[in-house]
Amino acid sequence: MNILRDSDATRARLLAAAADEFAAHGIAGARVDRIAIAANANKAQIYHYFGSKEALFEAVFDTLVAKVVQDIPIDVHDLPGYAATLADGYDSHPEVARLATWYRLEYATNRSPSPQIVSSLREKVDSIARAQTEGVLPTHYAPGTLLALILHVAALWAATGPEFSAAIRPPARQQRRDIVADAVRRILT
Amino acid sequence: MNILRDSDATRARLLAAAADEFAAHGIAGARVDRIAIAANANKAQIYHYFGSKEALFEAVFDTLVAKVVQDIPIDVHDLPGYAATLADGYDSHPEVARLATWYRLEYATNRSPSPQIVSSLREKVDSIARAQTEGVLPTHYAPGTLLALILHVAALWAATGPEFSAAIRPPARQQRRDIVADAVRRILT
Repeated sequence: MNILRDSDATRARLLAAAADEFAAHGIAGARVDRIAIAANANKAQIYHYFGSKEALFEAVFDTLVAKVVQDIPIDVHDLPGYAATLADGYDSHPEVARLATWYRLEYATNRSPSPQIVSSLREKVDSIARAQTEGVLPTHYAPGTLLALILHVAALWAATGPEFSAAIRPPARQQRRDIVADAVRRILT
Repeated sequence: MNILRDSDATRARLLAAAADEFAAHGIAGARVDRIAIAANANKAQIYHYFGSKEALFEAVFDTLVAKVVQDIPIDVHDLPGYAATLADGYDSHPEVARLATWYRLEYATNRSPSPQIVSSLREKVDSIARAQTEGVLPTHYAPGTLLALILHVAALWAATGPEFSAAIRPPARQQRRDIVADAVRRILT
């Protein structure tokens, strides 16, 4: 029992340390020995639990990005609110947007698309299409385009770099959320 | 004279090969020896011309990203058209959006913001602020926020990953451009 609990705890510590390391340095830049030290574990345990650095990245991505981005249910009756909730999630968990971006740049190239993410996107597109048929949502964009726009606008502040923050006075958190919701409202109008 | 011309040509070949390598693999993932081979040069020449892998990345970034993103002049009388031109630039040069994203993820962390980019953004914010004062542009967003939204929406299709392309039928190029212009038009309304 204790051994099982210990191994669960080690696995959880490794995942948490790996999330920090991958968010900061990406997959190529991440160092397995730094993750082991930060998790108070050793490299052999990483390979035992996860198999490889890439598989560890996948485990982090599935745990964290799926949790924040995929698990927020789309609300076709309140897409501005949905986008604001996503934007808020990115604000609370800046590592999520970074992991998703590393995934796109480093990992997704030359690999087949993740079936889980594809089916999660398809479900969202289907909800939008149904809402358009029922007259709940406007039809000036195809359902997939509307979803792409909403998800992209939700990531607005997570995608602005340090030069932007130096050039403008970035809005406060509640304002950032409100701006995202307002922009989605206008896109729907 | 020939020696100078040869060295210019070598430098240009190294920059082109480095752009491909950095766009594909980022800074940590890029391999100087692969760049040397692709440029029909050697590693010593890279260090001679640029000093380090990081400095080579900076040279690529300044040449390419500055060229496409910073040099397209903002047109406050036609912000949808400005965004469409940017989107078109990302479509023609997919490596530019990737380099800009690697820059933000890998390079800009723990470094002071690039003064050139900051001043280029400030000029754009100033043009928007003036146009708002003159009644050319609406005032429902602060000038910096409006610029952030426009630049972000322009990068819509450059930021969607392979899962998105698998989940929806991605629009054709002219449509992608039109969607960006249309979304900016709505954001301005």
